[in-house]
Amino acid sequence: MHRPWLVWSPGGYGNMKLDEDHFLGQILPRLQHATDLEVPPGDDCAAIRLDAHGDRLLLLAVDQVVAGTHYLYAETEPRLIGHKLLARNLSDIAAMGGIPRFALVAGGFPPDTQQERALAVMEGIIALAEAHHVAVIGGDVGRCPNEVLSLTIIGEVEREFVCRRNGARSGDLIFVTGVLGGSFPSGHHLQFAPRLAEGRWLAREKYATAMIDVSDGLFKDLQRILTASGCAAHLDPGDLPCRNGFSPQSALFDGEDYELLFTVSAERATALVREWPFDTALTQIGRITTDRSAGTIVDPAGREIGRIEQAFNHFSSNNSAQPSDGR
Amino acid sequence: MHRPWLVWSPGGYGNMKLDEDHFLGQILPRLQHATDLEVPPGDDCAAIRLDAHGDRLLLLAVDQVVAGTHYLYAETEPRLIGHKLLARNLSDIAAMGGIPRFALVAGGFPPDTQQERALAVMEGIIALAEAHHVAVIGGDVGRCPNEVLSLTIIGEVEREFVCRRNGARSGDLIFVTGVLGGSFPSGHHLQFAPRLAEGRWLAREKYATAMIDVSDGLFKDLQRILTASGCAAHLDPGDLPCRNGFSPQSALFDGEDYELLFTVSAERATALVREWPFDTALTQIGRITTDRSAGTIVDPAGREIGRIEQAFNHFSSNNSAQPSDGR
Repeated sequence: MHRPWLVWSPGGYGNMKLDEDHFLGQILPRLQHATDLEVPPGDDCAAIRLDAHGDRLLLLAVDQVVAGTHYLYAETEPRLIGHKLLARNLSDIAAMGGIPRFALVAGGFPPDTQQERALAVMEGIIALAEAHHVAVIGGDVGRCPNEVLSLTIIGEVEREFVCRRNGARSGDLIFVTGVLGGSFPSGHHLQFAPRLAEGRWLAREKYATAMIDVSDGLFKDLQRILTASGCAAHLDPGDLPCRNGFSPQSALFDGEDYELLFTVSAERATALVREWPFDTALTQIGRITTDRSAGTIVDPAGREIGRIEQAFNHFSSNNSAQPSDGR
Repeated sequence: MHRPWLVWSPGGYGNMKLDEDHFLGQILPRLQHATDLEVPPGDDCAAIRLDAHGDRLLLLAVDQVVAGTHYLYAETEPRLIGHKLLARNLSDIAAMGGIPRFALVAGGFPPDTQQERALAVMEGIIALAEAHHVAVIGGDVGRCPNEVLSLTIIGEVEREFVCRRNGARSGDLIFVTGVLGGSFPSGHHLQFAPRLAEGRWLAREKYATAMIDVSDGLFKDLQRILTASGCAAHLDPGDLPCRNGFSPQSALFDGEDYELLFTVSAERATALVREWPFDTALTQIGRITTDRSAGTIVDPAGREIGRIEQAFNHFSSNNSAQPSDGR
């Protein structure tokens, strides 16, 4: 999801002393909520009402990629770095049911960076932007010993279609697109296609009652839907669509899948499966309940699946492919 | 100005192999220009038309601060880093005559960063945001060996009031707010107040025919107005309002002043000076001509003042106070 503020310090990216929950606990109450803010910080995107009468919302989110954290500096084709940066942000627009429109890029490059490298990164951004009719409208560059790029995405969505994460209700079925797990070792994290068409369709057809994109691992991102919606979930790890060669454990805890995770009312689930117009896999993986405290995920035997700490630290403990070349 | 794209690789920030002009020459033609883009990349902000009939434009810009480039990591109070980051962006809104509304922040912090430091940086952003009724609506954090923060600012302006840099005409007088030079050694670059009220007033009263904020040095930023407007300028360095203890040379070439540089028709200049409602100093420093090629700046004797190369490299050659602690 890489939502504004709720991805602050994902523990999966190293042993930062910054504690996400504590940090957000301090910051979120300090933020002024503008009167025309339809969706405040804490979802995949913030949403702004453009005018009092209008039906259109502006979607805004920012995300970054850092050498050594999100990719290996020397080993990664620069075009793919640009692709990943924009794709991560497009995935946030997809999870809100929106249409991406504009992007601004800020880059910090080591002083000895060759022009060809920076251009190739931009080419990766521009190629994906063109494919989705996104206009790159601004940028800035600075000298930075460690390569780092941030991108702000601006999209739009009709107010009646905007998908949030707080709409899941008891009895809803839980679906996920694509396959999960092993995004880093498989290279998926660099080459994935953001699920824009799928997210838009789910929003316009009003199938999704809550939606998020899976970026910090299914377990953690599902918990975010559950917490926001005040629900729990039943999940059978055996039902998870695993990437070839990867375990349900990977599917549950690995990050950077960038698939859509969403809930659908039981009444409409059959129609969803029947009408689903995409080649993208669609898998029902569980259902929403209220018989546990919000955020809890239990297996068919009623046992809690994993623990939050696992989700926070899954890269460092379970995933040897995490980039660590800090350049 | 730190305009989208035209601040790409300011040479003042080190001997980057990335060449600004060459890089932009490659990138700008590749960018799609959305049909609803009123001001394309290359001004202080890009401006988007929100709807076909509406009069409001959305202003967007991104800017960043990097430890060792824009501030010294160990020596700088973290609140001031946050203040500077937002203030730089507010200065871009000011230069367009706009009103700032929303901000998104992305931060890369070293793994051993104390929570207190990150919170203090955010406090600096939030305090200035509150003072200007700006809502911080999104953020992201990553682990990065070198501290780096980028901020995207979203503002608005009426189409009839938007100030660009391409409106200077022969005979216009050139004005600048405040005093110039020595921003790094004086500490001004960390504590300045963005000229939002002044920029807004100049736009609404339609005094400014072209406007930019002085971030890469008066010489270079004036050249940008001249190049965009197809004009030259007469300037007497002796007329420049110098910060106490700093020379006209500093006022001409030092960066990060964040004052407003603008042109006014000769007919309205007297009224401008009479009506100017601010305590901020207002100084006429020259006039626009067309008797030289666009971008040329000459002194009263007709000699070209400095050279572009000086403006590109002024920090590294002239300013010993440039931050270089790369942490």
